Amino acid sequence: MGTVVALGGQVGGSKLAEGLQRLRGRNLAYVVNTGDDFDYLGLQVSPDVDTALYALAGIADPAKGWEPAGETFAVHAMLMRLRGPQQIPLGDRALALQLLRAEALRAGRTPTAVTLELCQRLGIEARVLPMCNDPVRTVLHTDAGALSFQDYFVDLKCEPEVRGFQYGGADQARLSDEVLEALHARDLEAVVLCPSNPYHTMHPILAVPGMREALRKGGAPVIAVSPIIGGRALQGSAAKMMRELGREVSARAVAMEYRGLIDGIVIDGADEGLAEGILATGFQVLAVPTYMRSAEDRLKLAREVLEFARAVRLRKEVAADA
Amino acid sequence: MGTVVALGGQVGGSKLAEGLQRLRGRNLAYVVNTGDDFDYLGLQVSPDVDTALYALAGIADPAKGWEPAGETFAVHAMLMRLRGPQQIPLGDRALALQLLRAEALRAGRTPTAVTLELCQRLGIEARVLPMCNDPVRTVLHTDAGALSFQDYFVDLKCEPEVRGFQYGGADQARLSDEVLEALHARDLEAVVLCPSNPYHTMHPILAVPGMREALRKGGAPVIAVSPIIGGRALQGSAAKMMRELGREVSARAVAMEYRGLIDGIVIDGADEGLAEGILATGFQVLAVPTYMRSAEDRLKLAREVLEFARAVRLRKEVAADA
Repeated sequence: MGTVVALGGQVGGSKLAEGLQRLRGRNLAYVVNTGDDFDYLGLQVSPDVDTALYALAGIADPAKGWEPAGETFAVHAMLMRLRGPQQIPLGDRALALQLLRAEALRAGRTPTAVTLELCQRLGIEARVLPMCNDPVRTVLHTDAGALSFQDYFVDLKCEPEVRGFQYGGADQARLSDEVLEALHARDLEAVVLCPSNPYHTMHPILAVPGMREALRKGGAPVIAVSPIIGGRALQGSAAKMMRELGREVSARAVAMEYRGLIDGIVIDGADEGLAEGILATGFQVLAVPTYMRSAEDRLKLAREVLEFARAVRLRKEVAADA
Repeated sequence: MGTVVALGGQVGGSKLAEGLQRLRGRNLAYVVNTGDDFDYLGLQVSPDVDTALYALAGIADPAKGWEPAGETFAVHAMLMRLRGPQQIPLGDRALALQLLRAEALRAGRTPTAVTLELCQRLGIEARVLPMCNDPVRTVLHTDAGALSFQDYFVDLKCEPEVRGFQYGGADQARLSDEVLEALHARDLEAVVLCPSNPYHTMHPILAVPGMREALRKGGAPVIAVSPIIGGRALQGSAAKMMRELGREVSARAVAMEYRGLIDGIVIDGADEGLAEGILATGFQVLAVPTYMRSAEDRLKLAREVLEFARAVRLRKEVAADA
């Protein structure tokens, strides 16, 4: 059993990571976007990392995904009564995690060390790794001006038209030792780009200097899973963003986002008609059901992704021998 | 209608302050002990100030007094699950207030300014004033070593034998402008020492340099209310401490704690037998029911305290004329 590195964020990424953890346990490193982190009441909220922690600890709300099951909002209700900041309805369980994170960061620990300790406290087998320890802030340039993802998503309900993205601070960021170690593992079996939004989840991770090179360096197959099914995003605003950026809204366009990086892409069975065209552009393709409704679905997709990676590796080896 | 300054802390103090607020509204300044403040998860918890805020906002739990009614502990439960610090079961509503306080303090506001803003946010008429803006930490010297009040009260359940008190930092503290202004008010009608623990609630306040002088300066009568009834403390550990410090456990001994400072003392009707002896030591005495079970009791005691203060002032004026 080799090791696997998954990259992603948000609910879709966490779902696939959860499936991969069931197959590879401690041999999974899940590298998570931190470009949407924000400060709130002196706490350093890291929404994609938190979503990953809840999913991998098995305590995520099955419907919402981004918060713990049974979440309550007593602190938020009191903040509203006290006319405090109200824009972020941070739940009580989430807040406990933020308080521990903030305390550990104040004590001088890195975001990576803090996250690994939270994994341990939550009984998570896999390693959840922030994409780097340096602050990166994704800025959405829209017709309503420059926005953080929180502003765009929570305050403005994804309504502004997106014109471009900027990953502030990414050029100054450095790969963490833990991410490098995971990507340089001798037994690295596959790198998986989870079905997350390419623009504000995957590209920030790939914008950390050296990340693209490190992904390819081990020689393990790099496989993306499309977040677009039948021309629509399953969750979130990926399809809307692709349209506004003048991209085709399709799994093929997703593959093109990762050109030069991935060996193959897993697309939904509903998009099987696109397979030949994608193959023609030089990517390996697997078309299977990718919508993850249940734990069973997550496990099944994870298994198919890893089997596809194995097949891609074999084909590469055959091609190299020829 | 004149102005009133009350000094105190904990539940007993807050109850009388609540009664005084009903009589004097914005003309009440309640100066509160901050010697038991502590840091917890990066938050600056000020237990006596918080208890005062809940009481004066009318949201205190009627039974417990020190927490908001309907308090829940979802954050604390998650902290326990995360194996975070568990010794302080900080409630969810309380936490909202701590988050706002911490944010305002980080922004450079003084504890007094922060508390006054919390008063406003909670719709409190009176001014709740921390005894000073400088850090003062009460240390209990006990047979189990030097302890903070939190350690003594929460962790050790008041079991160690108390040998003495130290008000760390008090000698460096300065009276705040707001406390000085309240005590120098031209129309100051009375200064009330609430029925709080003399050692870790009242003495820390009185240890702020200049406080004793400022209390006497305006010439208004200074009246204490005994927290000891029939040789027992109604709440908390005052009686146990008095015994361990070798004091008599009585309203008379309470009066002696404030020698040179107070003009008179309100004792409970049950202690009427002590009145003559206290009078003989030079204090004016009023014996009335002092146990505050209901809002009606709090209002009634507040009214009697202020009427007694008026009577004491008249007697002083008559004595001065004679």
